[in-house]
Amino acid sequence: MNRLAVVALVGRMVVLFALLMLVPLAFAVGRHDAAERAFVTSIVVTAAAGLLMSLATRRFRRELQPRDGFVLVALVWVVLPAFAALPLWLAIPGISVTDAYFEAMSGFTATGATVLTGLDHLPLSVNVWRCFLQLVGGLGIIVLAVAILPLLGVGGTQLFKAEMAGPMKDAKMTPRIAETARGLWVVYFWFCLACFFAYRWAGMSWEDAFMHMCTTMGLAGFSSHDASFGYWNSPLIEGVAIVFMMLAGISFAMYFVAWRQRSLRVLWSSVEVRAFVAVIVGAVLLISVYIRLDGHYDTYAEALRHTAFHVVSLATTTGYASQDYAQWPMFAALLMVLLGCFATCAGSTGGGIKMVRMLLLLKQSQRELVRIVHPNVVNPVVMGGKAVDPRVMQNVIAFMMMYGATLVGLTMVLLFSGMEPITAFTAVIASVNNIGPGLGEVGPAVNYGKLTDFQTWVCTFGMLLGRLELLSLLVLFTPQFWRR
Amino acid sequence: MNRLAVVALVGRMVVLFALLMLVPLAFAVGRHDAAERAFVTSIVVTAAAGLLMSLATRRFRRELQPRDGFVLVALVWVVLPAFAALPLWLAIPGISVTDAYFEAMSGFTATGATVLTGLDHLPLSVNVWRCFLQLVGGLGIIVLAVAILPLLGVGGTQLFKAEMAGPMKDAKMTPRIAETARGLWVVYFWFCLACFFAYRWAGMSWEDAFMHMCTTMGLAGFSSHDASFGYWNSPLIEGVAIVFMMLAGISFAMYFVAWRQRSLRVLWSSVEVRAFVAVIVGAVLLISVYIRLDGHYDTYAEALRHTAFHVVSLATTTGYASQDYAQWPMFAALLMVLLGCFATCAGSTGGGIKMVRMLLLLKQSQRELVRIVHPNVVNPVVMGGKAVDPRVMQNVIAFMMMYGATLVGLTMVLLFSGMEPITAFTAVIASVNNIGPGLGEVGPAVNYGKLTDFQTWVCTFGMLLGRLELLSLLVLFTPQFWRR
Ligand SMILES: [K+]
Ligand SMILES: [K+]
Repeated sequence: MNRLAVVALVGRMVVLFALLMLVPLAFAVGRHDAAERAFVTSIVVTAAAGLLMSLATRRFRRELQPRDGFVLVALVWVVLPAFAALPLWLAIPGISVTDAYFEAMSGFTATGATVLTGLDHLPLSVNVWRCFLQLVGGLGIIVLAVAILPLLGVGGTQLFKAEMAGPMKDAKMTPRIAETARGLWVVYFWFCLACFFAYRWAGMSWEDAFMHMCTTMGLAGFSSHDASFGYWNSPLIEGVAIVFMMLAGISFAMYFVAWRQRSLRVLWSSVEVRAFVAVIVGAVLLISVYIRLDGHYDTYAEALRHTAFHVVSLATTTGYASQDYAQWPMFAALLMVLLGCFATCAGSTGGGIKMVRMLLLLKQSQRELVRIVHPNVVNPVVMGGKAVDPRVMQNVIAFMMMYGATLVGLTMVLLFSGMEPITAFTAVIASVNNIGPGLGEVGPAVNYGKLTDFQTWVCTFGMLLGRLELLSLLVLFTPQFWRR
Repeated sequence: MNRLAVVALVGRMVVLFALLMLVPLAFAVGRHDAAERAFVTSIVVTAAAGLLMSLATRRFRRELQPRDGFVLVALVWVVLPAFAALPLWLAIPGISVTDAYFEAMSGFTATGATVLTGLDHLPLSVNVWRCFLQLVGGLGIIVLAVAILPLLGVGGTQLFKAEMAGPMKDAKMTPRIAETARGLWVVYFWFCLACFFAYRWAGMSWEDAFMHMCTTMGLAGFSSHDASFGYWNSPLIEGVAIVFMMLAGISFAMYFVAWRQRSLRVLWSSVEVRAFVAVIVGAVLLISVYIRLDGHYDTYAEALRHTAFHVVSLATTTGYASQDYAQWPMFAALLMVLLGCFATCAGSTGGGIKMVRMLLLLKQSQRELVRIVHPNVVNPVVMGGKAVDPRVMQNVIAFMMMYGATLVGLTMVLLFSGMEPITAFTAVIASVNNIGPGLGEVGPAVNYGKLTDFQTWVCTFGMLLGRLELLSLLVLFTPQFWRR
């Protein structure tokens, strides 16, 4: 392995990352707000660190091998949040290192869980940085899911390879990623622009429109207000959010293909997209009737409005709230959290299992039931008209095992630390699936600020693990990985 | 399919079942207790129904095919509890049909969840019937796991086929099952006898020794006292229970082999047995220290005593209690319930996933992690020195998917019905894994009596599903099964 070549690449990315901090700095300078110095310091430190890493390893620059990819991805998602945490740590009085890193990780992984209260009183530039970080994180996620993870043979959109524009397995890694990334970012950019103006048109201020565009497109969920979308109490703004959360819950690779083909056929014909929409529509109808009958809202219209917003927000793993849905009947609240575990499409900015994996598991289970009755029937798992490679199936199954073990394991660790069970369970679900808010003491009306340092680190690890689709991080913990 | 041949066989089993009711009747007559008439009526009705079924279908008696086996197993586990419920319904004032059927199903599936309070004041014969039902159920489970399910190609001990005494795949079904069953029942009988005298020696009355022998060997958990083992508060009695619960948590097929080989080698060398013991010892140490430090008990000795009893009771899916462990810290209580999901060995009278499946999944996951790094390495899953048939692996995976879906699905149904989440989740776990008591409102100090009828039926279905190892029941719900 080329460990130093990996460090060289990370170094260059850290330098680039320093440049991204110019965005919040611009806001800080424009407003002369209290975080000006924090950003200047952070930019200098980050750029210097990046240059140092890059220069010290200059001699080792080489083409990376797939195995280096795992190290690279893990390093990027551990190191960049550390630098991202720097301005938060400098600008927010009394914030601990643990909390600053949690907040930055929550931003970069587009989780949207926060330890901060009094968001409305933070310097504008700090909120801009938190939200902008999620836009950048969202970009990173798409590239990870569409271009990098499939090359590494884990998760992402490899299942749709056939639908994608000419995958070149044997081509060199870096140019392939760069090319795909460029195309995806153009698509992402146009969606962002549309979302930005839509929010402004619906009644947000320019600044809020920018920040919430960032956190919507990343399905990320940070807000500049403690009350999140409750701040506006506007059906129109919620409607805009619903539209763009749904759009961002679909594979950007599909949009890319649709754009190249000048046709939406690839979207309509996708089983995954149809299942995503069907599950969400079904859940909205079921829950709105349930909470209306429960008497939580006075009219069906009101119940439908709030259900639609929160189901979409949680199922797409965004995590916005306009109501304290933790006060809804447990069935409704937990069902929404559960949807966040699997509803989004692979290649979107969403977290969790992804719909395509659920569909494959469903088909695999049906197949096994048939095979119990007819042991000699050959019935491969078919998806989108093609037989699924058994290797893909095994990968999905390994993912599910790790996923189950992670949820149970981290929940037990949090319980061990003395946490109340609903809080522990939903905090783990909300972290590992990159949703953000959970229920109980990490519900939408409260936040992760009251957690102990230990608990905060457990959730931080959960967010990282979930974002890197488990396998690509866990593989680093096997001895075989490090053997030459 | 031979549907009528199946009915004929069920009819004969119902007649046999009527004869089993002579046991509680003997107690009723001996004590002249209030349930005498209830048992006489039940025996007459059951025998008559069985004879009718048998005679009406006499012409259709034929050798059964594997596919008939699924129908047979499901029918037996649905129909016998109905007849078992009859004396409970007749003898217990005010009990509903729903509750009587729940109690009988809980008995016959060796779950041990009860809807009854005031056990100490029931007629002796009713308690004897409840407990004896669990002994019979335990016998049924062993035959199911060791002889029937493997023939049907689902679950059970098929994974140990190589270790078993000459499996004959192509041999006719009925004689094979009968032969295996006889051997197993002899083993089971000697263990029961030892357990009975051990309880008597440790201080139980003859009646209690008999009843608790029945519910220990079936890992079933009914008691004749509301306080369960808290009634005696005797470390000696708890010690006897621990020994026999551990013994019953190991495959009876292994004992059968060990007895034939006159050697315990098959036990010591089994990975599954070693994992079973290791997990339980580890959990006892961890939890006893945890609850001692939490201040729940004054001394380590006391903490160790109560932890050992409850960890073994829950991990083996027995469900006895001597303390209200629901009051322990949530970490301890939930960890014990969690152990009940998988700790016992296949071929024991325990419920849940079974340790062998967990081991296979663990190996499969490790294998996938290695394959991500070295995609071309051939590394089959190995267990006990032999490569595992991929079909077995796929069966295990299908089981796990159904298992996960069942837990989540039934929990959501109970939440939908308005149940509190900890109660709902642990009631489902305790039903599907045939443990018995859960936490919350179905904890050891309370019971299932306060559930609504709908909730009771959900739990009844869960017990049945878990006992039949999911797949063998769920397969009946596929259209392919009923196609000719
Ligand atoms: K999120
Ligand atoms: K039990």
